[in-house]
Amino acid sequence: MERAIGVDIGGTRTRVAAVAGGRIVARRTLPTQGLPELISALREVAGEAGWEPEAVGIAAPGPMDMRTGVLRALPNLPAWRDVDLRGEVGRALGLPVYLANDATCAAIGELEFGHRAADFVYLTWSTGIGGGIVAGGRVAWGATGQAGEVGHMVLQPDGPPCACGKRGCLEAVAGGATLARRGSELLGEVVSAQGLVERARAGEPRALGLIDAACRALGQGIAILWEVLEPELVVLGGGLTGSWDFLGPKVLAAAQAMAREQIRMELTPLGDDAGLLGASALPRHIPPAWRSGAYGPRV
Amino acid sequence: MERAIGVDIGGTRTRVAAVAGGRIVARRTLPTQGLPELISALREVAGEAGWEPEAVGIAAPGPMDMRTGVLRALPNLPAWRDVDLRGEVGRALGLPVYLANDATCAAIGELEFGHRAADFVYLTWSTGIGGGIVAGGRVAWGATGQAGEVGHMVLQPDGPPCACGKRGCLEAVAGGATLARRGSELLGEVVSAQGLVERARAGEPRALGLIDAACRALGQGIAILWEVLEPELVVLGGGLTGSWDFLGPKVLAAAQAMAREQIRMELTPLGDDAGLLGASALPRHIPPAWRSGAYGPRV
Repeated sequence: MERAIGVDIGGTRTRVAAVAGGRIVARRTLPTQGLPELISALREVAGEAGWEPEAVGIAAPGPMDMRTGVLRALPNLPAWRDVDLRGEVGRALGLPVYLANDATCAAIGELEFGHRAADFVYLTWSTGIGGGIVAGGRVAWGATGQAGEVGHMVLQPDGPPCACGKRGCLEAVAGGATLARRGSELLGEVVSAQGLVERARAGEPRALGLIDAACRALGQGIAILWEVLEPELVVLGGGLTGSWDFLGPKVLAAAQAMAREQIRMELTPLGDDAGLLGASALPRHIPPAWRSGAYGPRV
Repeated sequence: MERAIGVDIGGTRTRVAAVAGGRIVARRTLPTQGLPELISALREVAGEAGWEPEAVGIAAPGPMDMRTGVLRALPNLPAWRDVDLRGEVGRALGLPVYLANDATCAAIGELEFGHRAADFVYLTWSTGIGGGIVAGGRVAWGATGQAGEVGHMVLQPDGPPCACGKRGCLEAVAGGATLARRGSELLGEVVSAQGLVERARAGEPRALGLIDAACRALGQGIAILWEVLEPELVVLGGGLTGSWDFLGPKVLAAAQAMAREQIRMELTPLGDDAGLLGASALPRHIPPAWRSGAYGPRV
């Protein structure tokens, strides 16, 4: 039975879990603070589990260098600039430590503990839009582990500016942060993305216009992924999928109109734990050449 | 030393080569006719090679079912409807026979004999636009071998109709057939895609407008592939890359404006033989579950 600790570092809270054979046997949720607090939580969870973990897998939004396990930054959290998680946490716990993008970890969670398809895309629809790709039963990492940035596909070259510096990215049209900001501008009052969805559901025409445009863009992105990757399904998670009964049919209709094959979309059965569970399985999936921090091709 | 026969069935001509250790030791080029002519050419090439091949790999434009080796159709060639290539050629030669999409075979050629990167996209820019994906040193086949259909990414949901039935596909904006047709309409005389490129190069403003729009669309498609797959490079082949000195800078400028990382594009060093060489190596790359024609997941 494989025993590991998974960590999911988010913008506001961090979750830590001891996972054995795919089951969470101990867990902690704490505000995202500094490295000492994280290491304390790791020790607590390991102690509570009552067994010695084999490794630690950490999911974070990045940017990062997953080949060396260095987290470059966390949004709005200056304490997390250039933190050598592999080195610091590894020395503190005496364990191998691996770091990867949170959406890629969620894809690993899906691969190991969710729908378990051999070919799929995991897509998180939340404040931003992220993704992870599994092809032929293996994670598609890309050259340095940054594959799966589906939110930064440019769909509208002359479209609205994106936080990344480009224009017309999927995230700049359909991400939760964009929906909240543009919805607030349009309605003349502060609304969250979720609030905008509820206005649209109630029939408010300006809210509905924004939501419909977001669903069309997300559907276009999914149709593109379908043509490029021919997945068995797209698995979705993230806060905005909480309104999937309303949004899902819109996204599916748009995607299906732009794809030649039958599109299949499913919500993750793992809920908020997809990334956390996937992080615990990350040590089994990390490419061999990145285990030591060595750079270079990994064929 | 691995010895196999590669076949590249095109819309007008078919090429057959005996390949040992990555080198072509005998070859035939014949008009694409029927199965008997293909089998004769295979026997001739095997005889000329002077050794017994281990397998036959066949590249074709499709549609096909590569899991069973059945070619469903070839454009404008009714004799090639539902041809069981694995069964027919296999029985005639007493060899295992595998079939795959020609752009995917070209990607295998690149992986084995070209730039040999672990993470790349092969993109063919010709009458149509096709692709093949290699991730982590392995072909990304998709659920049934149809991954890599980069020409059918919808970039302009309200754009021009595509031969596939959708609107605004990359191929419907930038494919050679589209360029020839729209160029001829616009200029009021029959021009080929290559002729249109030459008019654009000479400064003809309407030709230049079409070509610039095609290069922007291709650049957008490449930028999307970069965000989704983080390849080390995109390798290009196909007839329109013959004018790469003129077209390449336009495509690169468009792609770079829509990507966050440095984009690298290279022409294939294998020229027209990328698909043929890749087909000869196809038997080594085909997923195990498809070797027997068995359906189902192949994790």
